[in-house]
Amino acid sequence: MKAYLDPRQEHHDPKHFMANGTRLQNPEQPRRVRVLRTGAEAAGCRFEPPADHGMGPIAALHSPEYLTFLRTIHTRWARMPGASDEVIPNIHPDRRTASYPRSAVGQAGFHQADTACPISAGTWEAAYWSAQSALSAAGAVLAGDRAVYALSRPPGHHAFGDLAGGFCFLNNSGIAAEWLLRHGRRPAILDVDVHHGNGTQGIFYDRADVLTVSLHADPARFYPFFWGHAHERGEGPGLGYNLNLALPRGTGNGATGLPQVLVQKGG
Amino acid sequence: MKAYLDPRQEHHDPKHFMANGTRLQNPEQPRRVRVLRTGAEAAGCRFEPPADHGMGPIAALHSPEYLTFLRTIHTRWARMPGASDEVIPNIHPDRRTASYPRSAVGQAGFHQADTACPISAGTWEAAYWSAQSALSAAGAVLAGDRAVYALSRPPGHHAFGDLAGGFCFLNNSGIAAEWLLRHGRRPAILDVDVHHGNGTQGIFYDRADVLTVSLHADPARFYPFFWGHAHERGEGPGLGYNLNLALPRGTGNGATGLPQVLVQKGG
Repeated sequence: MKAYLDPRQEHHDPKHFMANGTRLQNPEQPRRVRVLRTGAEAAGCRFEPPADHGMGPIAALHSPEYLTFLRTIHTRWARMPGASDEVIPNIHPDRRTASYPRSAVGQAGFHQADTACPISAGTWEAAYWSAQSALSAAGAVLAGDRAVYALSRPPGHHAFGDLAGGFCFLNNSGIAAEWLLRHGRRPAILDVDVHHGNGTQGIFYDRADVLTVSLHADPARFYPFFWGHAHERGEGPGLGYNLNLALPRGTGNGATGLPQVLVQKGG
Repeated sequence: MKAYLDPRQEHHDPKHFMANGTRLQNPEQPRRVRVLRTGAEAAGCRFEPPADHGMGPIAALHSPEYLTFLRTIHTRWARMPGASDEVIPNIHPDRRTASYPRSAVGQAGFHQADTACPISAGTWEAAYWSAQSALSAAGAVLAGDRAVYALSRPPGHHAFGDLAGGFCFLNNSGIAAEWLLRHGRRPAILDVDVHHGNGTQGIFYDRADVLTVSLHADPARFYPFFWGHAHERGEGPGLGYNLNLALPRGTGNGATGLPQVLVQKGG
């Protein structure tokens, strides 16, 4: 199977991660790229570097303010006296009523949903190439491949259109889906990560042109908490085009409840 | 002048405060009560303890989920392995789309807008009596006093109906205004703190029955960043009943621009 990965995806090297009120070491490390690559190669993947599709397909999904923020915030943050080495937000707006802020601290809160997506000098470059890997995989599918693997790290499924979160900055699968759509295909996104794909859900929530399905641990007591419940089915034209299958924590691969739910959905 | 203060307001004794990505000592200390009391007494205030008006006037302004959260979260948080001694949020929903979470970490993010309002064992008791001081001052006005001082610490103006923030938990002036309204008066809130009163604005934003006015440093580069701009004038029936007078940082008491703005508003 074809596979895509760019070495620059390792340039995002986060140190910190704040959870339960304490500062921990960030587990989303560059070595994840090498672990995943080794596993994928053992399963028959042949890696090549992605082509550069430029900013167009990324800007089709993410807002201009957000992309400017991701590209420039680390430099601006570093100028603040006493600021941390990585961009970590400390205030978040109720986005129903917020005005867009001009300050670096305000913009960090506006564009970072949590304290698990610190931004350092290499973050943008890594996120950019992670998205390009997804686009190259989509391009291979367009060219006739039935299945292609994109090793998109940093990951993407917690990133909304203008909001980073949970180690994610650009929504790689969303960018690929939007690009496939614009090339005449009808994409679906099946998310099998243990966490709900809240960013992907949020991006396509009111749209009927991309089906989003997420299997994940029940968010009642698990990140991302606010999203991933069964009642979140989409809205407006998108109603029915978002499916959340929240599983009890500890569910194994042999779980039998799932196919029935999927059959009910399709039937 | 009559003045109100309860000694239990000192029971909120926060240690931490996260800003610009680093953990700092919290400046909102119990000794602020004594500093303010000394100053108020020198200006002629005579303090007495507030009466207990119960939960009714507080529940008239704040949501049931939020009040349950404030009263119980510290006990629940303390049960989590490895949790910090104070409740500090690390994930915040985009409240336009969020489902209400069941977990302690999720609820902390839902109900705490920033990392500047840590909740410890004594927080609820102190916030409760701070609100009672405001209510007793309102009661004295109802009984005929022309001016009364409530020393409401912890402060309140950054607290929304279901959201703590910026050292604030219960919106003391909002609770007093709502109570005065229900007793037939037509209250206005004039907020002269250096920061914008975003919680007060948010609570009354779509209402015409309580005029909210805030003088503060321009939020373009100052907390609370997302609120306090001149264009935020209220909405729906409340349009025109919220007035933000953002001043350049460093503006002194002799500034002359203000009265003109107020005259234009009234004219």
